[in-house]
Amino acid sequence: MTTNILFAANSERWSVYEPHLRHALDSQKIDYTLGTDMPKDQVDYIIYGPGLSEIEDFSAFPRLRAVLNLWAGVENIVKNPTLTVPLARMVDEEGLTQGMVEWVTGHTLRHHLGMDAHIVNPDHEWNHVAPPLAAQRPVTILGLGELGMACARSLRQLGFPVTGWSRRQRSIAGVTCYSGPDQFHRALDGAQIVVLLLPLTPDTENTLDAHAIGRLAPGAVVLNPGRGPLIDDGALLAALDSGRLSHATLDTFRIEPLPAGHPFWAHDKVTVTPHIASETRPASASRVIADNIRRGITGKPLQHLVDRDAGY
Amino acid sequence: MTTNILFAANSERWSVYEPHLRHALDSQKIDYTLGTDMPKDQVDYIIYGPGLSEIEDFSAFPRLRAVLNLWAGVENIVKNPTLTVPLARMVDEEGLTQGMVEWVTGHTLRHHLGMDAHIVNPDHEWNHVAPPLAAQRPVTILGLGELGMACARSLRQLGFPVTGWSRRQRSIAGVTCYSGPDQFHRALDGAQIVVLLLPLTPDTENTLDAHAIGRLAPGAVVLNPGRGPLIDDGALLAALDSGRLSHATLDTFRIEPLPAGHPFWAHDKVTVTPHIASETRPASASRVIADNIRRGITGKPLQHLVDRDAGY
Repeated sequence: MTTNILFAANSERWSVYEPHLRHALDSQKIDYTLGTDMPKDQVDYIIYGPGLSEIEDFSAFPRLRAVLNLWAGVENIVKNPTLTVPLARMVDEEGLTQGMVEWVTGHTLRHHLGMDAHIVNPDHEWNHVAPPLAAQRPVTILGLGELGMACARSLRQLGFPVTGWSRRQRSIAGVTCYSGPDQFHRALDGAQIVVLLLPLTPDTENTLDAHAIGRLAPGAVVLNPGRGPLIDDGALLAALDSGRLSHATLDTFRIEPLPAGHPFWAHDKVTVTPHIASETRPASASRVIADNIRRGITGKPLQHLVDRDAGY
Repeated sequence: MTTNILFAANSERWSVYEPHLRHALDSQKIDYTLGTDMPKDQVDYIIYGPGLSEIEDFSAFPRLRAVLNLWAGVENIVKNPTLTVPLARMVDEEGLTQGMVEWVTGHTLRHHLGMDAHIVNPDHEWNHVAPPLAAQRPVTILGLGELGMACARSLRQLGFPVTGWSRRQRSIAGVTCYSGPDQFHRALDGAQIVVLLLPLTPDTENTLDAHAIGRLAPGAVVLNPGRGPLIDDGALLAALDSGRLSHATLDTFRIEPLPAGHPFWAHDKVTVTPHIASETRPASASRVIADNIRRGITGKPLQHLVDRDAGY
C-alpha cells in the first residue's frame, strides 16, 4: 500500500529537500507519494518544519501515524494539544551533531587561544605571550544530550578539562558529570568557558542568570549554540559591561534573525553568529527521515521520539 | 661526581626556568650544579637558547658532553662547526606538541567556519548560510614530524580529510601520506587549507612558492606555524592580492618580532600571531632536559638527537 508523506515546511526548503528525500525513500524501497499538498484524510506522515508550516490542527489528519520534525528543537510543536501521534526529533549525526561539534570546538579554541586580539590588531602589537594549554582551561557544558555529549568528547580529546551537567545523570569517559538542580552550581564553579546546549523548556528558560554567572571564573566566556531564551539577556549584558564576563559568542536568540538595533549587535564583547552552529543537512537528514518512515511501515518503534512531558 | 650544567639563554628565561629545572633535576636524583656562569673547563652540559646565548665557540668547553636545545628549531646551531658533541632538540609533548595542536586545530576551524566575518561584522549582517562540514574541507599538512603528525591526527579526529607530505614516507591512520619531491605537488592538489610544519633547511626554504600555491584549491588558506622562510613572501602576497589565496595566518616570520611597517601587518588577508603556536613550557621542558641529562650520566643514548646532516 502506498504511504502518503506530506512535506510541511516552505517552498524554499521543499526545493532543497525534495531530491534528497526521494533518493532516501527510494533507497529504503518504500512505496510512497511525497508532496506539499494532498488531501488531509490521506496523509500518513508529516515532515514538519517548525515555524515554516501553517499546520496548527493535527486532528484534521485522521490517518496520521507520526510527525517527523526537520530539526532538533521541538518547542514550537511539543505542547500542541491536537498532536496525539508520535513526534520524532531530528537527530542527524552527520549534519546536526558534527556541525555542532565543529562550531563549539572552534569557538572554544578561538577564545582559549585569544584569537580575536590577533584577528583585529590595529596597533600591530607583537605581544609574545603564549596562551595556557587546554589542560588549564576548564570548560562546562550545560546539557548532555546527543549534541552536548559529542561536544564534551571533542573538547576532552583536545585536552580541556570538561564538566557536564544535565537533568538526568550521564556518564562520559573523562568528563565530570553532574545532574539535577542540586548540582547545578557545582557544575559551573570556576568554569572559564560555558557552553549552553540545553533543550528549551519552561524549566530551562533563563538558566544562565546573574546567579549562575556568579559561579563562573572571573572573565569567563559564554557560548550559546543552544536556544536564545536559555540566557537572561539583561544579566548577560550587565556581566559583560562590568567585566565579570569577558565575552559571549551567541548563535541563538529570542528573536531570529536578531533584530537590527539589538544591543548584542554593537556590543564589543558579543559575537553574533547567524544560527549556523547546527544546521540540518538535507542529505543526511533525509536518510534519517526515510529510515524512520520505513520503521513505521514495518511496525517498528520510531527513533528519536520526543518525551512530550519533558518537552524534548 | 657532580654534573655541571650551564644555562645559556637570557636572564629572563633563567628566572622562569631555574625553579623548574632544579625541581626536575632533583626529581631525577642528579648530583648537579646549575648556573648561568661557570668556568668553561668544568661545563658538562649546556642548556641552550638559540638567539639568546652568546656562545659561538663550543670548542672552548673541553668537558662538554652534550648541548640540550630549549626548543624544537635548531637552525641557528646545527651547522656550527665547533659543535662536535651530541645536540638534542626539545620534544616537549606536553608543551610544544599540545600547544601546536591547539593552534593548528583552532585556526583551521576558524577559517573552516568563516569566523572572521562574524567577529568583525560592522554592518550587522545576518547571513544564514551554514558552512560545509569538515568532511568537505581538505587539509594538507607539509611536514610529518612530531608536530605535523599530532596535528594530522587532531584534524582527522574532527572529520577533516587530511593529506600529509614529508621527506621520509610516513604512515598515519586515516591520513593520506605522500613523500619526496616527486609527490609534493600531488599532496597539495586541491587543498583548501595548507599547514606548514616542515623543519627549516636549505631544501625547505621557499617551499610555498608561486608554483606550489598554484596547486592549492582557489581561495585556499595558508597556516604557517613552522618557520618564516618556508614561504616565498612575495609569492604569498601576490596570491593574496589576486584572490588566488583568501587568507594567510602566520605565526613565524623571516625576522621576529615582525618589523613595524612590514606588509603583513596591514594586509587585510593576513593574520599575524606572535610566534605563540608552539612555545616550550618551562615545567614540561625542564622534565625533558633532566631526563636527558640523567640518560647522559648513566651512559644511555640521549633522546631527540639532531641529525646534523639532515639539519634537524
